Amino acid sequence: MPGIAELPQPPYFAVIAPAVLRPDVSGYAQTAQATLRAAQAVVGFHGIEMCAQPGFSIAVSYWRSLDAIDEWRHHARHERAKALGRSRWFSAYATRIAQVVDAY
Amino acid sequence: MPGIAELPQPPYFAVIAPAVLRPDVSGYAQTAQATLRAAQAVVGFHGIEMCAQPGFSIAVSYWRSLDAIDEWRHHARHERAKALGRSRWFSAYATRIAQVVDAY
Repeated sequence: MPGIAELPQPPYFAVIAPAVLRPDVSGYAQTAQATLRAAQAVVGFHGIEMCAQPGFSIAVSYWRSLDAIDEWRHHARHERAKALGRSRWFSAYATRIAQVVDAY
Repeated sequence: MPGIAELPQPPYFAVIAPAVLRPDVSGYAQTAQATLRAAQAVVGFHGIEMCAQPGFSIAVSYWRSLDAIDEWRHHARHERAKALGRSRWFSAYATRIAQVVDAY
């Protein structure tokens, strides 16, 4: 069930990850779910918001620190998911690292 | 056509806006388009990424400065769109202001 992440008070960090999806995204949802479970086990993971429509997706994950983001960036399961994404589902993607300074 | 925003090098700012959508979102797309055109006319607007699936949406807009975000926050057309969103389409929403520090 998609929803709004319950987060602590700022400051914390966000990884904003938009992707242009290919027409055939078979396997994507399962990999995303498994990847999410792996992220939830990383110390410093606060939450995630994910949205996918035909042809485009946005995931925003929230983290306590840049160190936590760096650990996740090099996590084996995340590396595998990113490689699958690049080869199968994404025709373009970007990753932006941000510090959340205010929330309301 | 949804896509990945073409942005300058960081630093710049992002407004991350997730929303839980009600089942009936009639009128939402048209209002979103008109609101987007108004945002594009604000000095300091860099771009936007938007995604909507049944029940959930994420919009991430990018700005040159916190002042530009503040101007947009109080823009008349944006105020009207937010009021419509709260009364018609959104059952929950959040707004997070962030400084993008890295992108790849």
